[in-house]
Amino acid sequence: MPAPGLAMVSGQVLPAFLVCSTLLIIKMYVVAVITGQVRLRKKAFANPEDALRHGGLQYCRTDPDVERCRRAHWNDMETIYPFLFLGFVYSFLGPDPFIARMHFLLVFLGRVVHTVAYLGKLRAPTRSVAYTVAQIPCVSMALQILWEAARHL
Amino acid sequence: MPAPGLAMVSGQVLPAFLVCSTLLIIKMYVVAVITGQVRLRKKAFANPEDALRHGGLQYCRTDPDVERCRRAHWNDMETIYPFLFLGFVYSFLGPDPFIARMHFLLVFLGRVVHTVAYLGKLRAPTRSVAYTVAQIPCVSMALQILWEAARHL
Amino acid sequence: MPAPGLAMVSGQVLPAFLVCSTLLIIKMYVVAVITGQVRLRKKAFANPEDALRHGGLQYCRTDPDVERCRRAHWNDMETIYPFLFLGFVYSFLGPDPFIARMHFLLVFLGRVVHTVAYLGKLRAPTRSVAYTVAQIPCVSMALQILWEAARHL
Repeated sequence: MPAPGLAMVSGQVLPAFLVCSTLLIIKMYVVAVITGQVRLRKKAFANPEDALRHGGLQYCRTDPDVERCRRAHWNDMETIYPFLFLGFVYSFLGPDPFIARMHFLLVFLGRVVHTVAYLGKLRAPTRSVAYTVAQIPCVSMALQILWEAARHL
Repeated sequence: MPAPGLAMVSGQVLPAFLVCSTLLIIKMYVVAVITGQVRLRKKAFANPEDALRHGGLQYCRTDPDVERCRRAHWNDMETIYPFLFLGFVYSFLGPDPFIARMHFLLVFLGRVVHTVAYLGKLRAPTRSVAYTVAQIPCVSMALQILWEAARHL
Repeated sequence: MPAPGLAMVSGQVLPAFLVCSTLLIIKMYVVAVITGQVRLRKKAFANPEDALRHGGLQYCRTDPDVERCRRAHWNDMETIYPFLFLGFVYSFLGPDPFIARMHFLLVFLGRVVHTVAYLGKLRAPTRSVAYTVAQIPCVSMALQILWEAARHL
């Protein structure tokens, strides 16, 4: 890796963020693959051209399990994408390494449990609790960025 | 903050961007909270397990006000996420600080008015005008990044 | 451009990434504009206040062509947003310039063909193949980031 490699810039914090964030992106890719598999297994396609290829136009239809996968994916887009931004900026604010890692770990675990609870249809409020657990460190990072940036305006 | 802190890198531009972008992320979090509150108040849940916890399966249903919140959120994801990327890169291109701040401020105000117009059901075309006001500086930043990057290919 | 301009930081890789990523964001903006045009042409609006402005409440309705545009846009949000993050971080890992450019080019071409196949209703599996072509370099970048970051934990 060349001298200005990102991983060196901020001590131990940035690598921990990159591991958590990249694993969450891969987790989202997995949800997309699962959605496609459920579409094939339940024969429920969103587009006529896909249905035609898999048996006929009658398979251009919605399915509760496909919709569930899509809601899980939507919720990931609501929460993980802002984390990619907040966690990256926060890593450069010089946070305490232990506290920073706890932030990233909570987001990571919260989002993994959220997906498992959603796709596994776990009893409420497992999913909502996981959502909240992952959102709290995100709000914390947002407020710290806001505070630090406002001081430099 | 340590020496390579992001806030110092680019003079007065990056902090202004970080304030606007982080406030917009918090605004999106608020829309998510409002969506949840409307679901509870109107008793309209997307998942059977949530409906069961709040009175019965008959509450697993759609509701116009919930759908409105979700459309506002979708539009935020269409517009604010690209801004997080464009504004960040643009901040490092050495733009004029005043012009850069005007870009960020227009995006910020446009998106706040957009959400208020959406959730408040304001008369058309308030919402569309706010959308356009926020998109113009985004397109401007995109073109400036493209121009600068193409010169260095 | 001032000394710490982003474009200089990482040789020839970052400008290539910025060109591809910014063009893809502009492509997404075009899909949004097309969606609005299809709504106006087919008279199919998502909100009562928009329908009222364009002829009456009976035009607050769904339309297959509008839904198709929205699915194309959703798929962009699923795939292009992670690329903005992965490609940016990957550009700082010191990759081979030729291999890096091939990564970015595949994502760019895959996503452009995906949109054309979606909106042009091309025969399956054109769209799915384009989706996969764009995802492979994204997974490759994710794994390289993960590998590099894990070594620095």
